[in-house]
Amino acid sequence: MTHPPERTGFTVWFTGLSGSGKSTLAEMLYHELQARGMKVELLDGDVVRQNLSKGLGFSKEDRDTNIRRIGFVADLLTRNGVATITCAISPYREVRDECRQLIGRFVEVYVYATVEEIAEHRDPKGLYKKALAGEITGFTGVDDPYEPPEQPEIWVDTMTQEPIESLQTILDRLRDLGYIDDATTLVEGPKVHSGMTDLRLTESGHVAEGR
Amino acid sequence: MTHPPERTGFTVWFTGLSGSGKSTLAEMLYHELQARGMKVELLDGDVVRQNLSKGLGFSKEDRDTNIRRIGFVADLLTRNGVATITCAISPYREVRDECRQLIGRFVEVYVYATVEEIAEHRDPKGLYKKALAGEITGFTGVDDPYEPPEQPEIWVDTMTQEPIESLQTILDRLRDLGYIDDATTLVEGPKVHSGMTDLRLTESGHVAEGR
Repeated sequence: MTHPPERTGFTVWFTGLSGSGKSTLAEMLYHELQARGMKVELLDGDVVRQNLSKGLGFSKEDRDTNIRRIGFVADLLTRNGVATITCAISPYREVRDECRQLIGRFVEVYVYATVEEIAEHRDPKGLYKKALAGEITGFTGVDDPYEPPEQPEIWVDTMTQEPIESLQTILDRLRDLGYIDDATTLVEGPKVHSGMTDLRLTESGHVAEGR
Repeated sequence: MTHPPERTGFTVWFTGLSGSGKSTLAEMLYHELQARGMKVELLDGDVVRQNLSKGLGFSKEDRDTNIRRIGFVADLLTRNGVATITCAISPYREVRDECRQLIGRFVEVYVYATVEEIAEHRDPKGLYKKALAGEITGFTGVDDPYEPPEQPEIWVDTMTQEPIESLQTILDRLRDLGYIDDATTLVEGPKVHSGMTDLRLTESGHVAEGR
C-alpha cells in the first residue's frame, strides 16, 4: 500500500497595510494549497490576537510580541510538514526577519497598496479616514510605522493586479522555489470561507468580493 | 516508492502538581514516540509561558488564559498529525475539559504525588517549604487550588512507581486506545534532553535523574 508523500512544511508570510489584500490572498492561497492535498493552516492576525494575544495593545513592543507568537506557532507547524500561511500586518522588519531566521523555510509576500488607494476605495469601516483626520491614533501607515520588506520573495501590487493575478504571481513563485509542483490555479469561482479570517461572507457562506 | 503511513495526531495532556513528575514522564514519552517514527512536539508549561504568555501572572484568569493558549496550539498540531505532549500544571478542571472538547483526540494523564511527598523529597529549590511556611503565596496545592481530574484516561502514582513503571502504564494505555501499535519501551538508558523542558541536564547533555 502506498501513501501520499510526506510534504515538507513552509511558511508563506503575508505582510502589508490593513486593507492591502492580505486576507483575501491568504484565503485564496489556502484553498489552492488544500486542493493540492497539502496540510494547510492559516494564522490570521486578528484570530491569533484573539487566541494568543488578548490583552496586548498596539505599541511597538506589543505588536512585536504578537508577531513573535505567530512566528513561534508557524515554526511548530512548519517543522511538522504544514504549509502555514500568516496574514498579520507585521509592520516591523526586524521581528519579521527574526521569524524568518526561526522558521527557515520562509516566503515573505509583500502585499502593496498605498494608504491613499485604500482610504479611497477599500475603507468600508472608515478607519483610514478617521486616522487621516487624527480621530484615531497608532494606525499603521498613517501615524504608526510600516516598514516594507527590502527583499521579499514575492511582491504583489493589488492596485494594478486583480486578486487572481496576484494569486498567480504567488503560485508561480512557490513553484519556482520548489514548494509546490504545479502553479495552475485549481479552485474556480467564489471560495467557501475557511473560517480562519475575518473576511466578509455572502449569505451562502462564500467569501464576499472585496473587503 | 512507498512512504510511512500518515499518522493521526493526538494530545497527551499531563496534569499534576509542580514536582509531581510531569516533565520527567513527558520527556520519556517524547523519546518513546520519536523512536516510533512519529512526529512529536512537547509543549512545556514554562516554555510556553515564555513564548506565548509572557506578562501573564498566576491568578485563576491568567492561568486559564495560559492553558487555553496551550490548548489552541496543541489543537493546531494534533489536527495536523502531530503527537503532542503538554506538561503544564493546568490546575483547573473546567479549562482542561475545554481543551479536551477542542482537541478531541485527548489523553489526560494525572500525575499524582502529594504535597507532603514533594515537599519532603523533591523540592530542590525549597519552593514548597517556602509556600508551606507562608513565605510565598499563590502556590498550587498549598494555598492555590489544584482540581484533580475526575476521569483521566491515565493515572500514575509517582510515589509508588518508578518513572519507567509510570511510562509503561502510559504506553500500555496509549496502545489500548489505538494511538500506538506497540507498548514496548524502545529507548534505553539516560535520554538526551529534548531541549523542550526545564529539566536539569548532566554535563554530557543527558537528562539528570530526579529533579
